[in-house]
Amino acid sequence: MLIIDALQYVNWNRDLFAQARDGGVNAIHVTISYWENTESTLANIGDWRRRFRENSDLIMPVRTGDDIRKAETSNKVGIILGFQNCSPIEDDLRKVEMLHEQGVRIMQLSYNNQSLLATGCYENDDSGVTRFGREVIKEMNRVGMVIDMSHSAEKSTLQAIDLSERPIAITHANPSQWHHALRNKSNDVLKALGESKGMLGFSMYPFHLNNNSSCTLDDFCGMILDTAELMGIDNIGIGSDLCQNWGYDTLEWMRSGTWTFKPDFGEGSSENSDWPEQPEWFKSSRDFSNISEGLISKGISYADVEKIMGLNWLNFFDNSFGAIKNG
Amino acid sequence: MLIIDALQYVNWNRDLFAQARDGGVNAIHVTISYWENTESTLANIGDWRRRFRENSDLIMPVRTGDDIRKAETSNKVGIILGFQNCSPIEDDLRKVEMLHEQGVRIMQLSYNNQSLLATGCYENDDSGVTRFGREVIKEMNRVGMVIDMSHSAEKSTLQAIDLSERPIAITHANPSQWHHALRNKSNDVLKALGESKGMLGFSMYPFHLNNNSSCTLDDFCGMILDTAELMGIDNIGIGSDLCQNWGYDTLEWMRSGTWTFKPDFGEGSSENSDWPEQPEWFKSSRDFSNISEGLISKGISYADVEKIMGLNWLNFFDNSFGAIKNG
Repeated sequence: MLIIDALQYVNWNRDLFAQARDGGVNAIHVTISYWENTESTLANIGDWRRRFRENSDLIMPVRTGDDIRKAETSNKVGIILGFQNCSPIEDDLRKVEMLHEQGVRIMQLSYNNQSLLATGCYENDDSGVTRFGREVIKEMNRVGMVIDMSHSAEKSTLQAIDLSERPIAITHANPSQWHHALRNKSNDVLKALGESKGMLGFSMYPFHLNNNSSCTLDDFCGMILDTAELMGIDNIGIGSDLCQNWGYDTLEWMRSGTWTFKPDFGEGSSENSDWPEQPEWFKSSRDFSNISEGLISKGISYADVEKIMGLNWLNFFDNSFGAIKNG
Repeated sequence: MLIIDALQYVNWNRDLFAQARDGGVNAIHVTISYWENTESTLANIGDWRRRFRENSDLIMPVRTGDDIRKAETSNKVGIILGFQNCSPIEDDLRKVEMLHEQGVRIMQLSYNNQSLLATGCYENDDSGVTRFGREVIKEMNRVGMVIDMSHSAEKSTLQAIDLSERPIAITHANPSQWHHALRNKSNDVLKALGESKGMLGFSMYPFHLNNNSSCTLDDFCGMILDTAELMGIDNIGIGSDLCQNWGYDTLEWMRSGTWTFKPDFGEGSSENSDWPEQPEWFKSSRDFSNISEGLISKGISYADVEKIMGLNWLNFFDNSFGAIKNG
């Protein structure tokens, strides 16, 4: 079964690449920037080029949907480069195309806070997609970079769905009706996403789960079933938000960047500030089979489980990663 | 009479410094950044250091209110460095203090568009001061950098007035009741500004003037009289927004930066895209005496004209350019 994970943030090494391959994962969207500017982002891309050279038996870069098929047939993990924020383009519209040429295929318009493009989900007020944001959406549409609104606020997300001429993605979040969290999404957003042929990736980051780390696989798979009904079976996939092998410093940096001197606890709290514990049925990339089995035991057909586990993302990426064809 | 101009954007050379000195201007707030990041801003500050060395008979840097008094007694033009946008601090709260140490004393929270801190006056929706913006306001308060909302949107401006523990400024704008323009300010904003002991600098940029370039001196001085009534005589000054010696390229860059591929005409239009013609009574820094004479002929006392022409800004800068004293 083809498996695509539309979001992981891992401190990668050879063992973890092997783990992903052994877990049967054919492609992973990896985060290379949260707050980084262009220069730091290019350095991170440079690090990935080195990883591709040094681990070419385990991983390969993905620039097209077909690259994922190649990864599958060669038993490698395809790596899709993406940003969780728009900081890498700074204030320069021209950098969208340049970074697409460097292999970047997915970019969030904002990460928790207000960005130059859109409002983040932790702001009090949401002004929607900005003047610059409208230009960037057009440019991302043109070159073939996926608009991701996982960490954006509601109005901004609805506007992005509306403004974008190509379907957009929420690579890693769950319905807020199932588990209330600022990072999860309303039924309005999910319906609009589904109607526009956009994609939702289901997150297994404990703060996005009902009962957090204690969430049961059955509960999670039931939520997927309900969301399939809301959005359509073709518009859902996995975006695990798996975070591995990082210390607390990294979490603090993801949350606070350089925008505040105080600790910001993000989805956690001062009493619960550290990385949350993964649910026992999804500790690592070895555990994707638990999800497919859980879905099957909910009575979903094998063909539909295949869609959820990877084929829907493959189809979406086939239609998203290339420039708009003229005429 | 002490004269302070709280905003000019001039392509400076020795002749123009001499012109300002001959016009009796004792201090000018000059713009060194619109869209520049930290590195480009430091280069611009470096250019100013060179100008200070090479024109030390005509100009001197201003870091305190007392420096303006020194400029007056030594017959030089004091130069206050400032930003029309927050791009120079990028997304890094720590850079507020660093740039203050470099001599920067005034920063706008946004320039026309949405910034990381606040919404600009040309956006459709205004989400107010952002999470990062709240931190930056505290830090600007702490180190002694003036918050300027000249190009910001209404709600953001009202929130900045409210959030800032020190009075803020609108260095260059006029009341929108007198002349409707997205850049001019509502009576609500002006009243809140006056009540908080903030300052408004009156602009002579034609797009901010009633009848634009044809605005009469009498009309302009009448508007000042009305605004004194609304805001208090101690809370108004001059912020001419004088732009000199630039080509169209610079105007295009100010308007469009790198955020759009299309021409953006800002306050102009496709039929009226170039730099506007200054009103005949204010063509250059030689013409400040026209304004003081115009005010006197409206029946304003000499003491009050002195306040408007410079003493109010001096008092405001005395209280704004230093760190908050402990205890």
